[in-house]
Amino acid sequence: MTDKEKLISHLRTIPDYPAKGIVFFDVTTLFKDAECLKILVDDLYEHYKDKGITKVVGVESRGYIAGAALAVRLGAGFIMARKPGKLPAEKLSESYSKEYGKDSIEIHADAIDGNDVVLIHDDLLATGGTVAATYRLVQRFHPRKTYMSFNIDLTDVPKLGIYPKDAETYSILSLCEHEG
Amino acid sequence: MTDKEKLISHLRTIPDYPAKGIVFFDVTTLFKDAECLKILVDDLYEHYKDKGITKVVGVESRGYIAGAALAVRLGAGFIMARKPGKLPAEKLSESYSKEYGKDSIEIHADAIDGNDVVLIHDDLLATGGTVAATYRLVQRFHPRKTYMSFNIDLTDVPKLGIYPKDAETYSILSLCEHEG
Repeated sequence: MTDKEKLISHLRTIPDYPAKGIVFFDVTTLFKDAECLKILVDDLYEHYKDKGITKVVGVESRGYIAGAALAVRLGAGFIMARKPGKLPAEKLSESYSKEYGKDSIEIHADAIDGNDVVLIHDDLLATGGTVAATYRLVQRFHPRKTYMSFNIDLTDVPKLGIYPKDAETYSILSLCEHEG
Repeated sequence: MTDKEKLISHLRTIPDYPAKGIVFFDVTTLFKDAECLKILVDDLYEHYKDKGITKVVGVESRGYIAGAALAVRLGAGFIMARKPGKLPAEKLSESYSKEYGKDSIEIHADAIDGNDVVLIHDDLLATGGTVAATYRLVQRFHPRKTYMSFNIDLTDVPKLGIYPKDAETYSILSLCEHEG
């Protein structure tokens, strides 16, 4: 069994969640398995070890797990991108549209500077709304470069127009959320 | 400068937050600094490397950062203890009292088993309400043993009566939240 086959065999799928015909991929079953967690972090490390990453930005909160472990492996710092009202000091905020209403994402104002090479990490890429807002937010710090990584890319879900298609993106697994 | 002096020098303190006379310790400035993040994880690793830890349970969400990186270093799995309604599959729940009202914490029902040696990790120990509930919740899985670790223990904050004083606890830093 290859590493990716092992990940897929351990990934919990929840059919018809959150809606009929949609398969939900529950990455917590990868995090709880010591070997799968190591595969995720090793895979990301191999991809990014020569990119000079100085900050990993994790998207709240499933992006924190492999993201924080990867930051330590890379010798980088780790930044929490959080939902509104959760960071205690001065921060920058970026809002984005959701299916119903708006949301926003925040990063401390002193989290990143112009010398940083940033990797934004989240567990799963679907329409890309949250990560697109995180990407815009990170660009306001004018880092030298910004990469994006995901444990899973849902390749059959159309990305929003605001998704930064020119950003260098890497996903460990490419899966489909629609059955059949 | 010792490692602990370095951590203290990088820890952001916010005076009179969330109330007059209280000093808030903002650990995000430790996570963002590559050296400080490494010190936190190395320190915890040295303390727990020979304990046979098989699962690290991180408390949402600041407990996920050093907790997940530590799990990878220890060769353990990582479990997210989450606020209500955020885990997608069958779960166990434990409620606890807060200053105003109640809250609860949840773990997936298949996250831990009787062969596990568990380390519960959170960033900061104050009254211990959330981590006491997490400890009770973990005990319902009947693990072989349960440890608890924190980046910071606020030693001048009285622990609640429900705090499991017999549990083996380790904190990297011991600090006071009241000034003077």
